[in-house]
Amino acid sequence: MSRLDSFIRRLEAQRACIDAAAQTIAALEGPVFELGLGNGRTYDHLRERLEGREIFVFERQLAAHPACVPDSEHLFLGDIHETLPAAVARFEGRVALIHSDIGSGDAEQNAGIAAFLSGNLAKLLRPGGLVISDQPMTLAAADSLALPKGVKPGRYFIYRRHP
Amino acid sequence: MSRLDSFIRRLEAQRACIDAAAQTIAALEGPVFELGLGNGRTYDHLRERLEGREIFVFERQLAAHPACVPDSEHLFLGDIHETLPAAVARFEGRVALIHSDIGSGDAEQNAGIAAFLSGNLAKLLRPGGLVISDQPMTLAAADSLALPKGVKPGRYFIYRRHP
Repeated sequence: MSRLDSFIRRLEAQRACIDAAAQTIAALEGPVFELGLGNGRTYDHLRERLEGREIFVFERQLAAHPACVPDSEHLFLGDIHETLPAAVARFEGRVALIHSDIGSGDAEQNAGIAAFLSGNLAKLLRPGGLVISDQPMTLAAADSLALPKGVKPGRYFIYRRHP
Repeated sequence: MSRLDSFIRRLEAQRACIDAAAQTIAALEGPVFELGLGNGRTYDHLRERLEGREIFVFERQLAAHPACVPDSEHLFLGDIHETLPAAVARFEGRVALIHSDIGSGDAEQNAGIAAFLSGNLAKLLRPGGLVISDQPMTLAAADSLALPKGVKPGRYFIYRRHP
């Protein structure tokens, strides 16, 4: 499988998980968090699939297409090790969906960030709320959900906080 | 359609065109040109689909994954306005396939580069040779070919030099 093949599969898996999560949380109140804005493509997808839902974005440094940058009230710029714990105080137990796409090519670094995120995301989620992630996490009081059809296990991850 | 949707469609179209072109030129001798290495994903795809075929890459500035960088004999680094005309002298009428993915968000710039490329690519192609491109081109002595199934007209382009 070429790097082009594997990249397309990853994007298709990401989109399938976002679409499935958007349906699952349709009746669940609460804002959405996007961890890692990047070029803004998944943020654009989230806001299209979850029209009217408040979306807060966490990003270290802005590099997105100008049309895909949220207003300043919905953008937490800086090191996620600082911005995310600060957000817990404000959003604890209220967030309906968190999409986390912060993996790099460095497996050790990914594992470290996933461990840090796990603790905070568990606190942020509302009962029944979802985390979709490019990295495996260990979330307290949450179950790993089955992936949408066509998405191979390990390519993306969905967790749901106990209702 | 979100930017994620449209990005996935573009990559799928790109892959479908490369795969179709690889089949079409299977019996045609001659090297392959990759114009624009980028992160190296399509170069990786080309070398997988065209195993054993000599591939020459043209890139302004290296930013690819280290595993997707050709050796120095197959890499023409620098402004394509200089490197490509120089390659014409060496490869005129011999190239079996040229993949050009050099479009930016700037339509005027894209049109300018496409016009420059058109003249050079027409000279490089062997009779029956193909150009696949993210931009429309006007190639002398070449026909526009039908796109693979599922690829919408205008999303990618395939041209074939008269046999």
